[in-house]
Amino acid sequence: MTAQAASAAEILARIADTLETRRPENGGDPQASYSAKLLAKGPDAFLKKIGEEATELVMAAKDGVPDRIVSETADLWFHCLVALTHFKLRPEDVLAELARREGLSGLAEKASRPQD
Amino acid sequence: MTAQAASAAEILARIADTLETRRPENGGDPQASYSAKLLAKGPDAFLKKIGEEATELVMAAKDGVPDRIVSETADLWFHCLVALTHFKLRPEDVLAELARREGLSGLAEKASRPQD
Amino acid sequence: MTAQAASAAEILARIADTLETRRPENGGDPQASYSAKLLAKGPDAFLKKIGEEATELVMAAKDGVPDRIVSETADLWFHCLVALTHFKLRPEDVLAELARREGLSGLAEKASRPQD
Amino acid sequence: MTAQAASAAEILARIADTLETRRPENGGDPQASYSAKLLAKGPDAFLKKIGEEATELVMAAKDGVPDRIVSETADLWFHCLVALTHFKLRPEDVLAELARREGLSGLAEKASRPQD
Repeated sequence: MTAQAASAAEILARIADTLETRRPENGGDPQASYSAKLLAKGPDAFLKKIGEEATELVMAAKDGVPDRIVSETADLWFHCLVALTHFKLRPEDVLAELARREGLSGLAEKASRPQD
Repeated sequence: MTAQAASAAEILARIADTLETRRPENGGDPQASYSAKLLAKGPDAFLKKIGEEATELVMAAKDGVPDRIVSETADLWFHCLVALTHFKLRPEDVLAELARREGLSGLAEKASRPQD
Repeated sequence: MTAQAASAAEILARIADTLETRRPENGGDPQASYSAKLLAKGPDAFLKKIGEEATELVMAAKDGVPDRIVSETADLWFHCLVALTHFKLRPEDVLAELARREGLSGLAEKASRPQD
Repeated sequence: MTAQAASAAEILARIADTLETRRPENGGDPQASYSAKLLAKGPDAFLKKIGEEATELVMAAKDGVPDRIVSETADLWFHCLVALTHFKLRPEDVLAELARREGLSGLAEKASRPQD
């Protein structure tokens, strides 16, 4: 695996780790953090954002502007990570499911297995 | 970094690599592959799916069923990867943008840099 | 009121009346009618369509094609009428709410009042 | 037709008439009116709201709360009326399309015909 892919994985895992600290029961401060505010408000707050960001991605794609497509996809994935955090799920769960479907079963097995 | 995170990154990169081969100009066969069919039909086909899968994720989250939340997030991210492929973008671009926003700047720099 | 507006109202009311007959408990036949099938399947079936049709309206509007904008708005409103039917609500309830907000209070009062 | 249906039609037509005055070229003041602000900003502003309100309707329906279902449907239809206004279309166009599909062809003909 390349250094690029390695750091990419670290990014998703680190964001999920940070979001975990923003949960109300972990002392996340709604005044200090956007994610903590969403997690304190509960599902409708971040689910609404998923609908909104999906629409914004569609519009950016219709306009065909690469920077906005990347930016809106990042917004959408970020709010998915917030939703996963609320439900005590991890991005690794999603990636393992993707791997399973794509027939990357060896990778899926590894992704769903705790650290060696 | 854990083995888990490493393989997670490999999953996104590998799916993107596979999708690249499904582009019409790379010989993707719409009869043989769902992704090739979406890429042959053009943006409206996969953008419609992004709206649909976002809605299905919202419904799964309202129901609070973990397996469906993971499955619908996987559906949503997969169709985002198809859209990125169409526009000659990579998941690494999205992850670098996420890292940049989260102040993971060292990681962002690595993610947007070709393999050492 | 013009003949045009009168018949417009009749259209919404008549579609709602028809949808009422397509409810499972009113003998709606899922084999014979698309609406009966949606109503038999339950909320996720028609709510998913609301997300999908909203996205298609957004795409039609980005393309700026009047016929498609009208057609996708009709699709979206139709699936809203199916949802209202499921929840034993009427388009008149929505119109009364719109009138109330717009300060058309005399009209709102009439819209929510049974036929004189 | 009932008085109820008559006033319902008047509501849609009157909102469309009001929105027409909020178009920038008709002197709509973005400082004074929410609709004028949306119309001045252009399509992305109100299309984003269509995606957002569709998601909020889906969430209200999952919760099964009648008042919120009515309120979110009103929000969604209102932003559709803003979009129609931008593209110089009318709610009567949408209703005529619905009538045509539902086999209410006599009504459709009337709905698309100018006032007698």
